[in-house]
Amino acid sequence: GVFNTIIKCFKRHGAETIDTPVFELKETLTGKYGEDSKLIYDLKDQGGELLSLRYDLTVPFARYLAMNKIQNVKRYHIAKVYRRDNPAMTRGRFREFYQCDFDIAGQYDAMIPDAECVKLVSEILNQLDLGEYIIKINHRKVLDGMFAACGVPDDKFRGACSAVDKLDKTFWDDVRAEMIQEKGIDPIAVDKIGKYVELKGRTELIDKLLEDEAMKAQKSAVEGLEDLRVLFKYLELYGITDKVVFDLSLARGLDYYTGVIYEAILQGFAHNPKAGADGDESVSVGSVAGGGRYDGLVGMFDSKGKKVPCVGVSIGVERVFAIMESRALASNTKTRTTETEVYVVSAQKNLVEERMKICKELWDADIKTEQSYKRNPKALDQFQYCETNSIPIAIIIGGSEIEMGVVTLRIVGSREERTVQREKMVEEIKSVLANLN
Amino acid sequence: GVFNTIIKCFKRHGAETIDTPVFELKETLTGKYGEDSKLIYDLKDQGGELLSLRYDLTVPFARYLAMNKIQNVKRYHIAKVYRRDNPAMTRGRFREFYQCDFDIAGQYDAMIPDAECVKLVSEILNQLDLGEYIIKINHRKVLDGMFAACGVPDDKFRGACSAVDKLDKTFWDDVRAEMIQEKGIDPIAVDKIGKYVELKGRTELIDKLLEDEAMKAQKSAVEGLEDLRVLFKYLELYGITDKVVFDLSLARGLDYYTGVIYEAILQGFAHNPKAGADGDESVSVGSVAGGGRYDGLVGMFDSKGKKVPCVGVSIGVERVFAIMESRALASNTKTRTTETEVYVVSAQKNLVEERMKICKELWDADIKTEQSYKRNPKALDQFQYCETNSIPIAIIIGGSEIEMGVVTLRIVGSREERTVQREKMVEEIKSVLANLN
Repeated sequence: GVFNTIIKCFKRHGAETIDTPVFELKETLTGKYGEDSKLIYDLKDQGGELLSLRYDLTVPFARYLAMNKIQNVKRYHIAKVYRRDNPAMTRGRFREFYQCDFDIAGQYDAMIPDAECVKLVSEILNQLDLGEYIIKINHRKVLDGMFAACGVPDDKFRGACSAVDKLDKTFWDDVRAEMIQEKGIDPIAVDKIGKYVELKGRTELIDKLLEDEAMKAQKSAVEGLEDLRVLFKYLELYGITDKVVFDLSLARGLDYYTGVIYEAILQGFAHNPKAGADGDESVSVGSVAGGGRYDGLVGMFDSKGKKVPCVGVSIGVERVFAIMESRALASNTKTRTTETEVYVVSAQKNLVEERMKICKELWDADIKTEQSYKRNPKALDQFQYCETNSIPIAIIIGGSEIEMGVVTLRIVGSREERTVQREKMVEEIKSVLANLN
Repeated sequence: GVFNTIIKCFKRHGAETIDTPVFELKETLTGKYGEDSKLIYDLKDQGGELLSLRYDLTVPFARYLAMNKIQNVKRYHIAKVYRRDNPAMTRGRFREFYQCDFDIAGQYDAMIPDAECVKLVSEILNQLDLGEYIIKINHRKVLDGMFAACGVPDDKFRGACSAVDKLDKTFWDDVRAEMIQEKGIDPIAVDKIGKYVELKGRTELIDKLLEDEAMKAQKSAVEGLEDLRVLFKYLELYGITDKVVFDLSLARGLDYYTGVIYEAILQGFAHNPKAGADGDESVSVGSVAGGGRYDGLVGMFDSKGKKVPCVGVSIGVERVFAIMESRALASNTKTRTTETEVYVVSAQKNLVEERMKICKELWDADIKTEQSYKRNPKALDQFQYCETNSIPIAIIIGGSEIEMGVVTLRIVGSREERTVQREKMVEEIKSVLANLN
């Protein structure tokens, strides 16, 4: 399944799994998610600590590192997170969904862990076989430098950032209006930003921006661009230059990113704002993975403010499931929900005990086996069950089979039947199963 | 791991997995858990439906069947449940732990699904290799018949039952006192119960009780005993008679059981009340699995009260983890938390790019590979990392290796080294790994 594929990729990069609890102290989550904090679920005060349900896996991971004084770790975590959906509506709904996170924590040299995260995303997307994709890359320092270069004051960077973040699902005109009206940014600055966020490219764009008069005057921009130059060099060594693009419109909503940020977009699902305006407000259309560097988060939970630099990625596995499902529907293939290999059928009455003996033998031989839970099921119902559930083999017993010490082995798909000596049954089933696979 | 072993057993019996949400409507959980209801976690009313966190996986499963009008299914579910620990204390604590449940829902013939659940428990315990165990079996109708036979009025059956349930962790004298003082049962009736709950046996005990004057006058007792006679016949066919015992002191706490009940006890951990009185109040000592038949629960969620008979089992996997852990400690074996096969080591400075090329090649060949995230790590640190993390192979590169188009392959365990042509590297690693396993 999807989870196994993803776990395999995580383990290939040497990650261990750490399981953090579903509850966190309410104060742990406070002030980490910006505008989205209103979606956090709180537990009722039943006379203990005030708790909330985790909103993502990143903040609990950072809290865990600080609490356990862990300086270095590479971990993955696949678990559900909880959000209140449409909290403005009278009838609140809850949402729970899986996140699959991989993070590298530790004080290391620039861009080596970051490049590995991007490589990992490409491995996962290749292996899930979701079709063409592109990984957009940007850097918070480049964004900050860009805002400064355009004349945005420091205290409006995060607001500008969350407005730019909406560019993948709405028109520039809307983003522009938000920046001016809601965030109170000077229209001249906003129009300068509008020019920059159109830019996409690879190393040539990095070089061009390092030559840009306004940008190169900003220390933050230069640092970010130097990082990206190293990153793109490493991504070339990892052979994935054709899968990545430096995109100045990528901002990502969460406050805690401090360095490189990235987001993988499936090409067939890429949103064209000009083609129509609506869509899911809460997730970028086509986005299946995202992440970045967050060097300040662990320090927020440490009593002495000791920082542990981190970089990570989260796979949007619910999106992946939706795509897989729509594909299965399109190709009209029914996915089996069980893995049963053999169904033990009685062709006559009063054979439940014989069926049980056979089931025991097959279970003990590690063959996935079912039988009817009725004493005297109809033969037709039993064969129907095999067909409906795509069970490949039926073992049929009747009075004559028992007398002769044999069973009838039927290949359900072809309806081909053969008589098998009872003592050869397990062996024969295993060989048929090996051939069917 | 433990989960995989358990899932394999569940699938061997043809179960599919169904995932129900972690929240339920508060009213769904109300009145299902008797005294334990005070341990349920409620969510804060943030303007939507009143929700609680699931307390077990059985009630949500029953609610799911009723809501989706499902008449037949065999499902497993491995997920966390949530309980408030020591809610009486000022500083409330939360507890979350895994449950592993398997259930068969459907209108079937007597004892066929029930026997399969018991067989499944024995398969799981055999495969987890936890040592000797015994599966205690009883029947709610036998208990009810026994209470009636002793002169307990109908409305005090459940109270008597929850008192008897404590027999595995406390003395009879305490249970007796609880029945008389708290549950208000006549001391003469209680002393009669005291005689019955000492009885343990197999088919001979079933036969004996069917001859017992007081018991055979109770329709409920006779029905239950007839069920058990069939069950023990089936368990004999399943070859596990030596693993089961009919034990009249087994009661199980939850209200919703209506038929056969069972509980698996590890022998090394069996509790002897005479040896000392305390212990964990909330779980039976040594108990690693339990379950039974609950034919009325689904009907409680159906608008027309339509019943779906169910029988299931829950594996106490946290107990299993604790046992595994204490064993690992005793034998002083450190369990690896990662599965990394190769560590790429640079023996000189400025080889990070060469290491990256090798990592790419190994990852793309599905070999679990790590490297240092530093540009110029010390050789000693890198070898130390391999040792600490039990990584079996180091691939070492230096200037001379690169010049000659080779790498040095070191078996970390034996420190044996060999020079390998770069283009043969993947092949050689795979063959070394195959030999090491």
